[in-house]
Amino acid sequence: MTTYSIGVDLGGTNLRIAAADEDGKLIEKVTLGTRVTLGRDYVIHDMCDAIRGMIDKYASKRSLAGIGIGVPGIIDMRTGMLRESPNLPGWADYPVRAEIEKRLGTRVILENDANVAALGEKWLGAARDFDDMAMITLGTGVGGGLLLNGLIWHGMSGMAGEFGHVVVEPEGHACGCGSHGCVEQYASATAVVRMAREAIAAGADSELVRAGSDPEFSAKAIYNLAIQGDEYARTIFCRVGRALGILLAALVNGLNLPMYVIGGGVSSAWEAFSPSMFEELRLRSMVYATTAPPASLDAGRGASAQLESLGPTKTIVTRALLGSDAGLYGAARLALLGSD
Amino acid sequence: MTTYSIGVDLGGTNLRIAAADEDGKLIEKVTLGTRVTLGRDYVIHDMCDAIRGMIDKYASKRSLAGIGIGVPGIIDMRTGMLRESPNLPGWADYPVRAEIEKRLGTRVILENDANVAALGEKWLGAARDFDDMAMITLGTGVGGGLLLNGLIWHGMSGMAGEFGHVVVEPEGHACGCGSHGCVEQYASATAVVRMAREAIAAGADSELVRAGSDPEFSAKAIYNLAIQGDEYARTIFCRVGRALGILLAALVNGLNLPMYVIGGGVSSAWEAFSPSMFEELRLRSMVYATTAPPASLDAGRGASAQLESLGPTKTIVTRALLGSDAGLYGAARLALLGSD
Repeated sequence: MTTYSIGVDLGGTNLRIAAADEDGKLIEKVTLGTRVTLGRDYVIHDMCDAIRGMIDKYASKRSLAGIGIGVPGIIDMRTGMLRESPNLPGWADYPVRAEIEKRLGTRVILENDANVAALGEKWLGAARDFDDMAMITLGTGVGGGLLLNGLIWHGMSGMAGEFGHVVVEPEGHACGCGSHGCVEQYASATAVVRMAREAIAAGADSELVRAGSDPEFSAKAIYNLAIQGDEYARTIFCRVGRALGILLAALVNGLNLPMYVIGGGVSSAWEAFSPSMFEELRLRSMVYATTAPPASLDAGRGASAQLESLGPTKTIVTRALLGSDAGLYGAARLALLGSD
Repeated sequence: MTTYSIGVDLGGTNLRIAAADEDGKLIEKVTLGTRVTLGRDYVIHDMCDAIRGMIDKYASKRSLAGIGIGVPGIIDMRTGMLRESPNLPGWADYPVRAEIEKRLGTRVILENDANVAALGEKWLGAARDFDDMAMITLGTGVGGGLLLNGLIWHGMSGMAGEFGHVVVEPEGHACGCGSHGCVEQYASATAVVRMAREAIAAGADSELVRAGSDPEFSAKAIYNLAIQGDEYARTIFCRVGRALGILLAALVNGLNLPMYVIGGGVSSAWEAFSPSMFEELRLRSMVYATTAPPASLDAGRGASAQLESLGPTKTIVTRALLGSDAGLYGAARLALLGSD
């Protein structure tokens, strides 16, 4: 019997469950809404139902290696409890892992969602075959994951990888974390919309004004204006790139890793922010300047064949390849690694 | 026969060589001037002479585990060559390790000086028994070393740990590395003197003015004024502390290590800069805020018994304990680890 594993991406909006084989081939994928407002018991019930359905379906054909679950928030790896999770209200200090294990009668691995995304990109995406890598996820907030020697670096209490709260502008915009000028205040989808509203309030003579009155006004709409040449929208993505460049310089100078992957929804705006990101990174990091690949690759789209040919002493900064599936695959991978 | 090792701290000014046993007990220490101006052959000759003297002396009584050498600069671990070393002009791209091994007829381990200082503090100093730690060395410049799982983290090309070039003030003072506002521009001895001269030039009504006319004007003189209550001198060390606080916040948020050690000459000014450092760190890092030891320990002087009682989930930031011997002991330790 071939082995497979089940990965779960438990987001604040969507609950996605996938079965994948050991080579990362997708066997089945299910997407449900996360019924957060009904409370955690409903969500766990929905999740366990769907997982049980998969297990029953493949029981006669495949051997289950395990179940990995990516969760937004800080996880106490020892107890399997969520310590903090703004997108899953009411879940903190609840024995999530124990409860799911009880219902399914099998072992489960819980992991932070940014960490599983990093693991997914390492397994099947842009960081394939890189044992040391950092992932920066640009979504509603900015998350991060760090893999060292092929393993997730959790740090002392599971809080490592909080790259979104590295300071890039000491006197900058106030952040929910209590600091000012965190990366998250310049490079998240929320920040892009805020910076656009600031520009509108300051009297920008721009298409942003019209777009800003749309109730669906989003980072994507602002990106569309930027690629159409709107100066104000372009300036906003330059600020995104600048913040990321300063963060990357700190990571490159401090850790000297070979691979940095930028993922999450805002990474779709790569064309708009990456030029200023690379410019800032090159300026800010002599380590990068001496290890950067040829400039033609700065616009890299994860062209892995090209990247591999560069050898082992180049610093690669590139886009994630798996999109929103990174976390799902990473969660499935977690279970396969756990079974080693 | 008991085992011992020889550690060398090859600085731009002093060349120090020590023999130590496996428990870190000092057997013998020799300090020579580094005759840099005479060229590298003289320096290597002096070093090998002194090492050979020690080896002969203990040959009948002890077994030599190896020789470790801490060198300022970036080392290519594969080839044992210095890639860049501003304090040792003319040494770049010279096969340092091979040359010393040839002269001594024994294996030698070369390592960056900040990395060996970290190893020394882990072995016998403030980070004793912590497998994961970062060290920040405040000297003429600002260096750094990172130990993960008890081993020096070199990164892809031996350049990891360049904490002195993490940006803390994006529009700040120009740095030799090409960036602006690096930690090194606020927290090195050079920066302390520069900031004092800036205050004098701006017309500071302060004792600094008189002290500044002394040809020996130094960070130490400015520290003395700060502890005597001079407002301008105090402000300078607040800026030192602030820069370190922002750097530490990035390290704590990114790596979530249990132990951060501040060493180097400027760390003697701990009383003057640490209050603003801890204030900034607490403000900038929610990870620190949730894992900080009781505030009474913020003034920590490496009280390790007290620290140990705090258990495994506290973030400790403390002064180095070994002073300028950290690198010497770390180099000796290198050789002992290498012999495992």
